[in-house]
Amino acid sequence: QSSPLEAYWQDGLKFRSKDTLYRFSVGGRLHYDLAYSGQSEELGSRFEHKRTQVEVRRARISLEGNIRKELAYEFEVTFGEDIEFADMYVAFLQVPLVERLTVGHFREPFGLEELTSSNAIVFMERALTSTFGPDRNTGIMVQKPFWQERLRGYVGVFRITDDLGNDRQGLGDHSFTTRWAFAPVVADHNQVLHLGLAFNRIAPDTGNYRISTNNEVNTSPDYLDTGVLKGVENVNQLGTELGFTRGRWLLQGEWIQSFTKFSNQAPDGLANAKHRYQSFYLLTSFFLKGGARVYSKGSNRFNPVLQPRHPGQDDFGGAWEAGLRYSYLDLRDSRQPLHTLHNVTAGLTWYYNTNTRVMMNYVHSLFNQGARANTLQGRLQFTF
Amino acid sequence: QSSPLEAYWQDGLKFRSKDTLYRFSVGGRLHYDLAYSGQSEELGSRFEHKRTQVEVRRARISLEGNIRKELAYEFEVTFGEDIEFADMYVAFLQVPLVERLTVGHFREPFGLEELTSSNAIVFMERALTSTFGPDRNTGIMVQKPFWQERLRGYVGVFRITDDLGNDRQGLGDHSFTTRWAFAPVVADHNQVLHLGLAFNRIAPDTGNYRISTNNEVNTSPDYLDTGVLKGVENVNQLGTELGFTRGRWLLQGEWIQSFTKFSNQAPDGLANAKHRYQSFYLLTSFFLKGGARVYSKGSNRFNPVLQPRHPGQDDFGGAWEAGLRYSYLDLRDSRQPLHTLHNVTAGLTWYYNTNTRVMMNYVHSLFNQGARANTLQGRLQFTF
Amino acid sequence: QSSPLEAYWQDGLKFRSKDTLYRFSVGGRLHYDLAYSGQSEELGSRFEHKRTQVEVRRARISLEGNIRKELAYEFEVTFGEDIEFADMYVAFLQVPLVERLTVGHFREPFGLEELTSSNAIVFMERALTSTFGPDRNTGIMVQKPFWQERLRGYVGVFRITDDLGNDRQGLGDHSFTTRWAFAPVVADHNQVLHLGLAFNRIAPDTGNYRISTNNEVNTSPDYLDTGVLKGVENVNQLGTELGFTRGRWLLQGEWIQSFTKFSNQAPDGLANAKHRYQSFYLLTSFFLKGGARVYSKGSNRFNPVLQPRHPGQDDFGGAWEAGLRYSYLDLRDSRQPLHTLHNVTAGLTWYYNTNTRVMMNYVHSLFNQGARANTLQGRLQFTF
Repeated sequence: QSSPLEAYWQDGLKFRSKDTLYRFSVGGRLHYDLAYSGQSEELGSRFEHKRTQVEVRRARISLEGNIRKELAYEFEVTFGEDIEFADMYVAFLQVPLVERLTVGHFREPFGLEELTSSNAIVFMERALTSTFGPDRNTGIMVQKPFWQERLRGYVGVFRITDDLGNDRQGLGDHSFTTRWAFAPVVADHNQVLHLGLAFNRIAPDTGNYRISTNNEVNTSPDYLDTGVLKGVENVNQLGTELGFTRGRWLLQGEWIQSFTKFSNQAPDGLANAKHRYQSFYLLTSFFLKGGARVYSKGSNRFNPVLQPRHPGQDDFGGAWEAGLRYSYLDLRDSRQPLHTLHNVTAGLTWYYNTNTRVMMNYVHSLFNQGARANTLQGRLQFTF
Repeated sequence: QSSPLEAYWQDGLKFRSKDTLYRFSVGGRLHYDLAYSGQSEELGSRFEHKRTQVEVRRARISLEGNIRKELAYEFEVTFGEDIEFADMYVAFLQVPLVERLTVGHFREPFGLEELTSSNAIVFMERALTSTFGPDRNTGIMVQKPFWQERLRGYVGVFRITDDLGNDRQGLGDHSFTTRWAFAPVVADHNQVLHLGLAFNRIAPDTGNYRISTNNEVNTSPDYLDTGVLKGVENVNQLGTELGFTRGRWLLQGEWIQSFTKFSNQAPDGLANAKHRYQSFYLLTSFFLKGGARVYSKGSNRFNPVLQPRHPGQDDFGGAWEAGLRYSYLDLRDSRQPLHTLHNVTAGLTWYYNTNTRVMMNYVHSLFNQGARANTLQGRLQFTF
Repeated sequence: QSSPLEAYWQDGLKFRSKDTLYRFSVGGRLHYDLAYSGQSEELGSRFEHKRTQVEVRRARISLEGNIRKELAYEFEVTFGEDIEFADMYVAFLQVPLVERLTVGHFREPFGLEELTSSNAIVFMERALTSTFGPDRNTGIMVQKPFWQERLRGYVGVFRITDDLGNDRQGLGDHSFTTRWAFAPVVADHNQVLHLGLAFNRIAPDTGNYRISTNNEVNTSPDYLDTGVLKGVENVNQLGTELGFTRGRWLLQGEWIQSFTKFSNQAPDGLANAKHRYQSFYLLTSFFLKGGARVYSKGSNRFNPVLQPRHPGQDDFGGAWEAGLRYSYLDLRDSRQPLHTLHNVTAGLTWYYNTNTRVMMNYVHSLFNQGARANTLQGRLQFTF
């Protein structure tokens, strides 16, 4: 029961047996950020301001592999002040009727950009829509393709857990999530249309629920925050996704509506109230040179793919990608003074090679009440 | 001074040089638990109750290897809210007179089940006897076999340290531990008799000592607890082990007595007092299909060994193991209201393959005062 | 874009592609310390005393590699009560005009011993001069050799960050550091002369600055401490280095002067004050057998190199190194009661093999006011 493995380098250290029954890879990522920020007086009076900030956005190690086409697994840890588990799952690949049954700690299937790796997203931070994303939780999910993989369904039940896969105090109980990804047009010249629909439902055990977010700048405070909402009976969220590539050009958008229903015993005059929060974004990305965003049929998302620097060589890199995004978040029903945010991000990314990219993002934020913030931020991203 | 290594997969990623002078392996384990519990009112009034709980019981990475048959080493870290060191040692293999001299942080040689890997134990949690187990500490240990490995002695001196190998505040000083494992009968058809005797002595520097434990359910509170005992002069513990396999059947039991001696200045009317705590368990396991528990002569414990799913193939798994255990803990001398516990555990384990097992355990706990608790818990265990 | 790798063992697990365009290695270190200490009454009245202490001084995992001679990188994490990042950088190797451009979290180029790996230093702890060492911070550095590598210059700008590469609260802002290493004599019989000059400047944003240190004994408290100095305008530090090997003999010394300039609004009567702190050490090391300290031209420091145990075999080890060091620290201007320290360390190190060494150090400390401390400490060091 010992299978020889071949070691090889392919953007990272990998192993496979000749029959490819066994695969294993060792990887990691390191995201170094530097941000220069300014904010208007309305914000300055409430939130502490630091002009420049340096941080390790992500330092992560991952071990993953496949066993006999029966199992796929990942063991991924993020290092920082606290340890956080990223993907920590086992996936069974030979379960009847479905393509894959995943058990463990991983991303709930909700949101196109949410499901795109932080190594691959167009801008340094995900859009405001990810405010509603359930992120990673501990659960069980099945997925199954239909119509020659034109359609893929994901259905999962999750326990809402903390970053270590353990029960989180007081947030809630279970989350039900399903996503349906439809790619009706897949043509030559990297021409792909992707449509997605997702639904998520949470019924907080304690009745407490809270949404908060920064302005797509990780070093900024959570400018928008509903505070702890009490007496929440359930939250239903509906997400729609659009993606379209043609050649070196990507257009991507999402719209998420979140409906919070309060119980008839909710305090603060909220008995039987219904809140509707929403967010959407629209982004476009264009590879000026050396690459394109390509649709991954198996996981239904868009990843950057680089071209060789020199024809015929296996030396990929030297690509440039420009992007523009408009995002909007509306938490008006929460009755907080700050409740809506328009965000515009312009980004330029240099892919030095398949392991390294340098990102520069300018983020302009316009809140209600005329509050404003501006950030110029850069990232050195290295993955292996 | 560069030796080529061959990579291979054998339940995990391993490397060896052709002359086997160098070995190295990368491994990990992931134990996901789900527990449904109920407790009687006597317990409910004192201990908070959570009906269902999800937790990552263990997420651990290990690097281990051998160098020139001179050294064996392991570097093993458990990830969670806090980092904990598991096995972190260097073992010298060519020390005169002994088989092996181990230095570092590792398990003290006390308890048959304590020394069985958490990947290999019959039930999800070790028995109540492990309440007295000194677990891992930082020390030095020698081991030596006698009579064609029929008898093996382990002797160690340890510094009682925290989970990071550093001195623990206020628990104590040194621990002396010795274990003698005797396997007089080793016959065909997996027929083995194992007898063990172990002694452990702790002299707490500060005079403080405490024993506490849950009811073999990790998500439960520590129902039994002596509280901090003051003025403790020393603790002597005596362990006896019995193990017997025949074919697919295992019978295993242990009895540990712990004698706490108080000094003549001990407070709370305990001057010169002697407490005797004890615990024992008896368990049986039977492989319904596809495997057996096999005695490891080198480390004196019983590990599950799987059979190929298909004759002639190296595709091990599909085994089923059923087990039953009765455990008893008596802390009567501690004068706490809750002080004795009878525990019955029934377990069923499915070994999907050599890397994966799914466990289901039912635990019934009967305390003195008629207090009761019941738990149904399951585990998905993946190791590589 | 998949390059086959060969695995091999060379003091650790390493991989390389045949064309050596890709390299990767997995490593770790484990330093176990045991210290017996005594201190005189003057110290005992102020600092808590523990006679014996055990600790894991370092438990560290490292992943490092090279990509296409374009990039070198390291991802190194220290495990303990808190996670700390050690070397976490990406180095660009094909930047015009310079040898190497390093970005990330790594040691500022200040101090010969500071830049020597903790796996390779002569004694268990670095000398008192490292009190002034800026250690690792997050920054950018270029280096360039001149005159056939006789001279190498390092220039870096750093953000003063915590052990996780993030901004540290209230210490300061940026640090500018440059080091010039000059090796005018490199002759036969391991005869090398090294001269070094380094400059470091810090301008604390908040005006707060503090220096504190133990007596070259990691389990001791920080006996010397300036306390928080307020109103500090800038700190300029000047370091000079001397190193000389001949055969199995090393002589090494450093002298660091640190000038703290207070602003005209500094409190505590320190307006416009200038403090001068300084430290120096002189050490000698001699390999009684089996090895020598050899100068690394590429990184300008001295590392132990072992000889084969048996002629013609690749079985290195069995070496013995004896060392003696005198260090001095003067924080007199800080007006603290304890402000100067003379330290003498005698050390004996046994290199069992290239992975393992056992160290024994005796440290005698003489403070002003006649306060004294003595420590006998040992280390088991294992690296892979």
